[in-house]
Amino acid sequence: MRVRLQDVADRAEVSTATASLVLNGKDDSISGETRTRVRAAARDLGYRPNVLARSLRSQRTRTIGFISDEVATTPYAGAMIQGAQSVADEHGYVLLLANTDYHPNVEQRTVEALLDRQIDAAIYAIMYHRIVEPPTALGAIPTVILDSRPKDEAAFSWVAPDEIGGATAAVEHLAKAGHRRIAMINDQVGPPAAVEREIAWRTVLEARGLDRHPDLLTYAATDSASGAQAATRLLEGENPPSAVFCFNDRIAAGVYIAATRLGLTIPRDLSVVGYDNQVLVAEAVDPGLTSVQLPHDEMGRWAMEQVLSLLDKGAGLQYKRMPCPLVERGSVAPPGQL
Amino acid sequence: MRVRLQDVADRAEVSTATASLVLNGKDDSISGETRTRVRAAARDLGYRPNVLARSLRSQRTRTIGFISDEVATTPYAGAMIQGAQSVADEHGYVLLLANTDYHPNVEQRTVEALLDRQIDAAIYAIMYHRIVEPPTALGAIPTVILDSRPKDEAAFSWVAPDEIGGATAAVEHLAKAGHRRIAMINDQVGPPAAVEREIAWRTVLEARGLDRHPDLLTYAATDSASGAQAATRLLEGENPPSAVFCFNDRIAAGVYIAATRLGLTIPRDLSVVGYDNQVLVAEAVDPGLTSVQLPHDEMGRWAMEQVLSLLDKGAGLQYKRMPCPLVERGSVAPPGQL
Repeated sequence: MRVRLQDVADRAEVSTATASLVLNGKDDSISGETRTRVRAAARDLGYRPNVLARSLRSQRTRTIGFISDEVATTPYAGAMIQGAQSVADEHGYVLLLANTDYHPNVEQRTVEALLDRQIDAAIYAIMYHRIVEPPTALGAIPTVILDSRPKDEAAFSWVAPDEIGGATAAVEHLAKAGHRRIAMINDQVGPPAAVEREIAWRTVLEARGLDRHPDLLTYAATDSASGAQAATRLLEGENPPSAVFCFNDRIAAGVYIAATRLGLTIPRDLSVVGYDNQVLVAEAVDPGLTSVQLPHDEMGRWAMEQVLSLLDKGAGLQYKRMPCPLVERGSVAPPGQL
Repeated sequence: MRVRLQDVADRAEVSTATASLVLNGKDDSISGETRTRVRAAARDLGYRPNVLARSLRSQRTRTIGFISDEVATTPYAGAMIQGAQSVADEHGYVLLLANTDYHPNVEQRTVEALLDRQIDAAIYAIMYHRIVEPPTALGAIPTVILDSRPKDEAAFSWVAPDEIGGATAAVEHLAKAGHRRIAMINDQVGPPAAVEREIAWRTVLEARGLDRHPDLLTYAATDSASGAQAATRLLEGENPPSAVFCFNDRIAAGVYIAATRLGLTIPRDLSVVGYDNQVLVAEAVDPGLTSVQLPHDEMGRWAMEQVLSLLDKGAGLQYKRMPCPLVERGSVAPPGQL
């Protein structure tokens, strides 16, 4: 049972009004002996003053809601929570997470529950870069979009990965190793991340005068079995590439599987670059996969700093494209003879 | 800015007392015209009544805290949140998550923040099976330990994986395929999961009269590079195994790497079973890895059902060892000639 003020008052043999005055520090009119008795009773019983009700009066709870579709349950994006949490911690804020798993009714209920608990502000975090419309109820408090862009870009602060920059670094890395036939296996669903990474791939090929045969572009579902199928098509086609840039690391793992089955050795016969820098995948394959890092920790930190800036200084909205650095392992080498 | 009762009262041109009476349904003494005006003002302004304060009076907020070390940020255990969330949703409860990332000060602050928000009960969730002492402040409300055991097993309800059963199924699967030299690469740190899986491995070897040479047991850090080193020691030793049971899938991925470097083909020359059924790893390797599934979803569901049972029926404490089923892919075959 939760300990209530009444329990403290009973134990200290005072009225609840007296207990309340003591525990709220408004005890000038109360004898030292009574104060000591009330405080001892509160301590013995483990009484927790209703700081929330106090916060309601001060209009600040130092609590930030972190509302996500599935960030808390995927293997991909947990570092966004860690980044946001570490900044919150530095500033004495608490982060309350709600995972809605894409269920609109759960989202609505949890957003309302957080608003009812008077969160000061919210981070609306998305598992992968897409275009979102946050729940309208969040309009009542400062809200920052994390890892996606809002439909109305002028309505919210937001931070998203610099996909163009990350993909450009990946394809440039392959081009600088000497590859002239660089294929891309992209996500067949075509979220903003896929569109932007494909633009970057095309742009590097054009800028460097590399082979732009249509066979060099193909699509897959974002798992390794689909990646292996797509890679087999590329490698058994008339225009096999010497390097493949993949939408994500799971597809890249499929490229390894296809290459091995076709008797090719990575990176001697085929170079591969992934995206996500998903360590579980990148280190499960041999040689380790060179991959583009999604800046989850940095984006989480930025979002929380922006939230605090909106709260404390009433700053204007901002948006940020966070750089995606390339993490080199062993999957890229100069082209051999296919 | 948050809309306050005062704003509603101002817009409706009534006192805050009148506005409060109307919005709390205690408006018998108030004219229909005034009621309509107050409700319209509340609707227009998006006013949210302080349901939390109401809940405090009813002593039930229908909110469960889910406090974890890093469950929300690891690639492993998100299904525990999903399981707990789905049961909470079925019963109209909201799940508020707090991730403490092993920082005691963050844990203390977030537990207190949740208690201040009057959560009805808590799930204390742990990233991997170990012996825990929940924060003492949680003693004030029903608390269920998820994926670990409390130091005082009689003090809390808890659910943990049936490691003995899962590991027994894994080793039996290899024995039934005909293997008589089944090695184990265990976690060198030795958490309860490692101790219990090793007991199961020994027990199956003894029960079936299989080779129990000490060389067949070795230890590694739980990543693929360490797994590859350990596997190389086993496979280059005097008593190489024909099958390896691994503490986790990342170590198993290292076994693939070592086997390939030594010219061995899985499963023709070496069978492998992992633990975790971590799909990112199990499907990144070729052939897919047979692995023991940690019952994260089921444990999350059980924990939430137990929480609700403690709340609604005042039921007694319970504990549960949740079965860990074997998920077969392509990494096990009858032994060949090493």
